[in-house]
Amino acid sequence: MDIEPQSKGRGGTRTIDVMSAIRAKVAGRALGAGDRLPSIRSLATTMGVSPSTVVEAYDRLAAEGLIRARRGSGFYVSPTVTPPLALTEVEPRRDREVDPFWVSRQSLDTDDAVPKPGCGWLPPEWMPEAALRRATRGLARTDASVLTNYGSTSGSPALRRLLLTRLAEDEIEASVDRLMLTGSGTQATDLICRFLLRPGDTVLVDDPCYFNFRALLRAHQARIVSLPYTPSGPDITRFEEILAAERPRLYITNSALHNPTGATISLQTAHRLLTAAATHDLTIIEDDIFGDFEPERSPRLTALDGLNRVIRIGSFSKTLSASVRCGYIAGRADWIDHLVDLQVATSFGGPSPVATEIVAKVLAGGSYRKHMDELRQKLTRTRRDVARKLQALGIEPWLMPRGGFFLWCRLADGQDATAVARAALEEDVVLAPGNVFSVSQTASSFMRFNVAHMSDPRMWDVLRRALKAKPPGR
Amino acid sequence: MDIEPQSKGRGGTRTIDVMSAIRAKVAGRALGAGDRLPSIRSLATTMGVSPSTVVEAYDRLAAEGLIRARRGSGFYVSPTVTPPLALTEVEPRRDREVDPFWVSRQSLDTDDAVPKPGCGWLPPEWMPEAALRRATRGLARTDASVLTNYGSTSGSPALRRLLLTRLAEDEIEASVDRLMLTGSGTQATDLICRFLLRPGDTVLVDDPCYFNFRALLRAHQARIVSLPYTPSGPDITRFEEILAAERPRLYITNSALHNPTGATISLQTAHRLLTAAATHDLTIIEDDIFGDFEPERSPRLTALDGLNRVIRIGSFSKTLSASVRCGYIAGRADWIDHLVDLQVATSFGGPSPVATEIVAKVLAGGSYRKHMDELRQKLTRTRRDVARKLQALGIEPWLMPRGGFFLWCRLADGQDATAVARAALEEDVVLAPGNVFSVSQTASSFMRFNVAHMSDPRMWDVLRRALKAKPPGR
Repeated sequence: MDIEPQSKGRGGTRTIDVMSAIRAKVAGRALGAGDRLPSIRSLATTMGVSPSTVVEAYDRLAAEGLIRARRGSGFYVSPTVTPPLALTEVEPRRDREVDPFWVSRQSLDTDDAVPKPGCGWLPPEWMPEAALRRATRGLARTDASVLTNYGSTSGSPALRRLLLTRLAEDEIEASVDRLMLTGSGTQATDLICRFLLRPGDTVLVDDPCYFNFRALLRAHQARIVSLPYTPSGPDITRFEEILAAERPRLYITNSALHNPTGATISLQTAHRLLTAAATHDLTIIEDDIFGDFEPERSPRLTALDGLNRVIRIGSFSKTLSASVRCGYIAGRADWIDHLVDLQVATSFGGPSPVATEIVAKVLAGGSYRKHMDELRQKLTRTRRDVARKLQALGIEPWLMPRGGFFLWCRLADGQDATAVARAALEEDVVLAPGNVFSVSQTASSFMRFNVAHMSDPRMWDVLRRALKAKPPGR
Repeated sequence: MDIEPQSKGRGGTRTIDVMSAIRAKVAGRALGAGDRLPSIRSLATTMGVSPSTVVEAYDRLAAEGLIRARRGSGFYVSPTVTPPLALTEVEPRRDREVDPFWVSRQSLDTDDAVPKPGCGWLPPEWMPEAALRRATRGLARTDASVLTNYGSTSGSPALRRLLLTRLAEDEIEASVDRLMLTGSGTQATDLICRFLLRPGDTVLVDDPCYFNFRALLRAHQARIVSLPYTPSGPDITRFEEILAAERPRLYITNSALHNPTGATISLQTAHRLLTAAATHDLTIIEDDIFGDFEPERSPRLTALDGLNRVIRIGSFSKTLSASVRCGYIAGRADWIDHLVDLQVATSFGGPSPVATEIVAKVLAGGSYRKHMDELRQKLTRTRRDVARKLQALGIEPWLMPRGGFFLWCRLADGQDATAVARAALEEDVVLAPGNVFSVSQTASSFMRFNVAHMSDPRMWDVLRRALKAKPPGR
């Protein structure tokens, strides 16, 4: 058999598509060692290619050793070791610009000097620096055991008691055994997923949603189903339909100042949602990480539910410090007990006592409340200013949020957010194109802007140039 | 059908045993929603009970709703939601005293004033308190971005460069892209397990081994296989046999100052082990968390292997601070890249920059080396003194370790370590009985002592009394 330069021809590309799809299934563990591959005919139909393309792809994967033919019975994944869980390879041939991992790493690993209107946090000068320095100096004088010991498995009792008073603001009466501290808000969600999910379970998220929910659920090998998010919360009719048809194990959402849209759930939607959840025995994670940015507290799902089937998670990364890593989970006491076991097994101990001591010191001082008041006022002005400037470029906010630092915007007709983000990145500006947040990939004309990172005039120059970028011609 | 007080009769106990076994399989996810239960006959044979006992157990589980009968085709797990992963329920009816979770939580959640010869860390007064306070004061004056930002996804470049110089001591030439920082040593191991394992995969550990390896692997729903540990490392003949017969995906071990035995692998064992590992394509995690306690560095598996199939993990919890949480992974660059993705997805970002800044400041100052020199000398004296006192009670160290703070000891003939630990706990002293460390549950006459926690005379009084405890009469 001649080796033709197949990958250049049209047929070659299709062969590579099929190979990528199979590799992705193995990497994502939808296919494990020894599992049978789809028949040639069925895969050809599914992928809309000819059977000979599938044969070629299978032959080449067999030559690489990934799969094996068994005479008369088809192809099987090689019975060697399970391949590692390479998350970026789970979905084949995606644009890097709309891959959740790629956007996270771009935002996190780019130098502080680079403008990051695509990132999900405030710049250092917006954070309570003086209070953090004061708390850190206090830490240097505290008991040696706080500086050296693991600390208790549920985390600092003092900080948990402070959190109880905040739950009480939502009229949730809880005791400390319904609260545990974690290494971060993401770790909180991750622990709950470990507790509740197994590979293949269905999880419901909003469309759009925080992109790291997708990354996290990929790590859990969950089946992700999404539903449209409206200005008053998730599309409740679709929600009821999906619960009946797909029976998801879990729904992850933000009730207030939803990421990326900035929308807040209405009381009626919340009530209908919880009624449907009860009928179908659905568990809900309410990620309240942006909650403190609201000018007045809107009704939370947990406030209606009383920490029964809704679990609240949160952290201090957005309002206090993302460096001092500390999140929390509030939920049913019996579940908290199991979640503490899981955290001990996977992290040995709760979050760092050094971290919880700093957070508790800042929260206990009166300065945190004052900082948040000022921050909310500053953000209200900044959202308005940035919205006006964006509108001048034909970029229209989907709604004006009650608080927070995100504007979810529609670009002018025909503009492709991924192409714009790609062009901006060539000039070292990290943007967050809509499809990063969209499981259904239907947000290509949207972009999330972080208004606190948009004071640099150079950033606006780059954005203006990038908006002229053409969408990819394929 | 009359409801008899069955649980009191002999037959009732057996019924409950069968019910517990099934519940454990469902909790541990060996049986999922919709899965068929073992046939009545086969389970009766396996568990050594009568078929009518199994019928009774299945009927009662069906009444509870956990399982359902299908006419003519047996019993199935109810097709409702997957039950949560309740780790403590995975193994039925274990003694709490030899449950890894229970011992961890006892050690972590017990007040500092309580003597803890069973715990796995040094008391605050043995840690470099002055250096930690100095580093914390320095932190209070550092850049605002360090105090407020997420930091880079692989963790502080400065600390990674410091770690490179330590790898160089083992003649491992690596670049920073082969190193990533994590939230703790346990989180490092957990990330690798997430990357490499899927439920049901076989993992090899030492017997005895660090008990949290067992807890962690339970969280991964791995199949655990163990092999005896000898004074010169794992029993290498058994190792070769197990690799051929069981084809484990992963082996987790400590090469130097093995926990709990304090033994160190010999160069010949290390070489033979790596040769067998290469033949069977086995990946190894070398947990080097106690490495700095060695008076002179012994050969590490990673030093022979050059970070190829052996991944090194470590942390600063034992020598510097367990409160400042920071661990690391050194391994193949391509794997590190995927592991960073996994850490971003599950924790959003690397370890706390606040934590890594404190660790880097302590390590960079000359005081850490001096602290370790003094600590090693103090531990040498303490190990000797405690060994002598234990011998006076008929408790014999299995070997005298080259370093560290553990003594793995055999109790006098016929003494049951679990009974002793239970008796000590009634007087508020936390001990670590041998079977906590033993997958095969063959270490009932062993106990791990932490010599640094044995200066309190009251502790010795409690131990003396506890040694008179009788083993349970069942």
